[in-house]
Amino acid sequence: MHSLEELSELFRARFKQVEYPVFPENLYHNVQYILGIQGKQIRPVSCLIANQLFSDIKEDAFHAGIAVELFHNSSLVHDDIMDGALLRRGYEALHVKNNMPTAILVGDFLIIHSFEYLNRTNPLYREQLINIFLRIATGVCEGQQLDNDFENAGLRDVSYNNYIIMSELKTAVLLAGSLSMGAVIGGADDYQSGRLYDFGINLGIAFQIQDDYLDVFGDPAKTGKRQGGDIVKNKKTSLLTKTIGLLPDEKMMKLESIMHFHPEKRVPAVTALYRDYGIEQWAIEQVKEFTDRAFTILEEIDVPQERKAPLIQLAHVLLKRQY
Amino acid sequence: MHSLEELSELFRARFKQVEYPVFPENLYHNVQYILGIQGKQIRPVSCLIANQLFSDIKEDAFHAGIAVELFHNSSLVHDDIMDGALLRRGYEALHVKNNMPTAILVGDFLIIHSFEYLNRTNPLYREQLINIFLRIATGVCEGQQLDNDFENAGLRDVSYNNYIIMSELKTAVLLAGSLSMGAVIGGADDYQSGRLYDFGINLGIAFQIQDDYLDVFGDPAKTGKRQGGDIVKNKKTSLLTKTIGLLPDEKMMKLESIMHFHPEKRVPAVTALYRDYGIEQWAIEQVKEFTDRAFTILEEIDVPQERKAPLIQLAHVLLKRQY
Repeated sequence: MHSLEELSELFRARFKQVEYPVFPENLYHNVQYILGIQGKQIRPVSCLIANQLFSDIKEDAFHAGIAVELFHNSSLVHDDIMDGALLRRGYEALHVKNNMPTAILVGDFLIIHSFEYLNRTNPLYREQLINIFLRIATGVCEGQQLDNDFENAGLRDVSYNNYIIMSELKTAVLLAGSLSMGAVIGGADDYQSGRLYDFGINLGIAFQIQDDYLDVFGDPAKTGKRQGGDIVKNKKTSLLTKTIGLLPDEKMMKLESIMHFHPEKRVPAVTALYRDYGIEQWAIEQVKEFTDRAFTILEEIDVPQERKAPLIQLAHVLLKRQY
Repeated sequence: MHSLEELSELFRARFKQVEYPVFPENLYHNVQYILGIQGKQIRPVSCLIANQLFSDIKEDAFHAGIAVELFHNSSLVHDDIMDGALLRRGYEALHVKNNMPTAILVGDFLIIHSFEYLNRTNPLYREQLINIFLRIATGVCEGQQLDNDFENAGLRDVSYNNYIIMSELKTAVLLAGSLSMGAVIGGADDYQSGRLYDFGINLGIAFQIQDDYLDVFGDPAKTGKRQGGDIVKNKKTSLLTKTIGLLPDEKMMKLESIMHFHPEKRVPAVTALYRDYGIEQWAIEQVKEFTDRAFTILEEIDVPQERKAPLIQLAHVLLKRQY
């Protein structure tokens, strides 16, 4: 049994050893650049954790984890182009550092390369792993498309339910699929791997709503972000879509005018509206509801309690974070 | 045994039956749009042809062919973004018809979806097919990067050898890999499928040089394209890179000034330079040399001659085309 910290360290060390071709230099140098800007690698680590729920870590959990991490980085590179983002994790976004064509190709290569690692797994369950991976990779594209659609939609055309569908696809499926693949590799049956998928979906949605909540109501000293950054960007978050669903027509017109305020006035005005409609408390309850669902599912998975410790710890890291 | 025309028709009918999800509409509607603008489907048809060299057509040859065609369309959609192209096969390019973010996502989905079809093939050789596919898909990304590098390079920094490496990756590997996968599915051994790969590389390069040749020396009434279109776009073709390699320093300076002429003067000036350096004849010989290599390889493949007929016919369609 490895702790969460040990598994994180194992994966980090392993991912650094992944080798890439060197020619053409402008392609692979930029692949290395983006992979060098490491994030928390929560998805691949969750793949190891799920493997360990059922058996000792197998080499294939690293293969599946590397596949997920490569794909995740591809979607970050392509998202940054779509959003016109300048920075990624504090460094220049790839299309800014290099150029847009190379960033498109780096993303394409990373998608292709993720299948290279899936193709190395045990033929006994390789087809199943690839099917899970295809489902989640497709889901991420769909979620990103919905996110684009959301951005172009009018305020009255978005709903909290659609927001949940979008975050499930864009954010939660990759975590869910990582857990599910790890479970398959560890020897779980279809029921157990399916339950871990559902655990990941609920945890992922809880995480997303909490992220929206902290943006408005979190302590900037702890989050390290500007308070109300989503409001500044006019992002249609869970908080905003829920509020819109509650507003009577005349208040809706008021909100539409608020959205045109200068950001300095917009942030306090929208925050006040959230408070008027009890959105702060509602968001806390939603996070709790999705978290509770996740943990109820986890209880249904019949493995020794101590094997669940790193997964529970991961959930706490994701949800109790104070930053 | 099916003729080339029958195999083309079989694939065309089959590809139309491929089903896609409907939600999110903005993603899948545009997937259908780009796949609806059908090209000649030479790559997937060559997969069927290669299968038929060794045995009757198997269902898996359609799966592999669909994978190749989906991937090819992905690279067209992404290339059009990179090149800022307005049209694709006479219709609006996807990023023009819709928008750039959706075009990126459609391309990403098509890459992912191509693996869906590879994952349906017989486990006996699935790993091998995926490995061939990974090699060619990676090659296409590398070739596209080299093409971008070429475009940004100065005239003195490009060489005919580099041009051949670039076209091998960008154009020839997808044909070569399709043939190779078809051969594996048909029951070929490693030597035979490897030889078909090499056949495809040589045929693909011959095709590319001929394409460059026809652009300058072909009959516009037959090509349906503006004569010297590549010269107008300052494209670094096989003809141009070969010429650069032959030019003494003082002529090189002249060429550099010619490249800044107005297109109406540039086309005849560059064409005259090609004639001065015997490039017209050289190109014809190069096409013949690569074609001869391809056919020599084909002779080494020990199957009944009548089984080779559709493949020879395909090569003639590709190379003796008068349009």
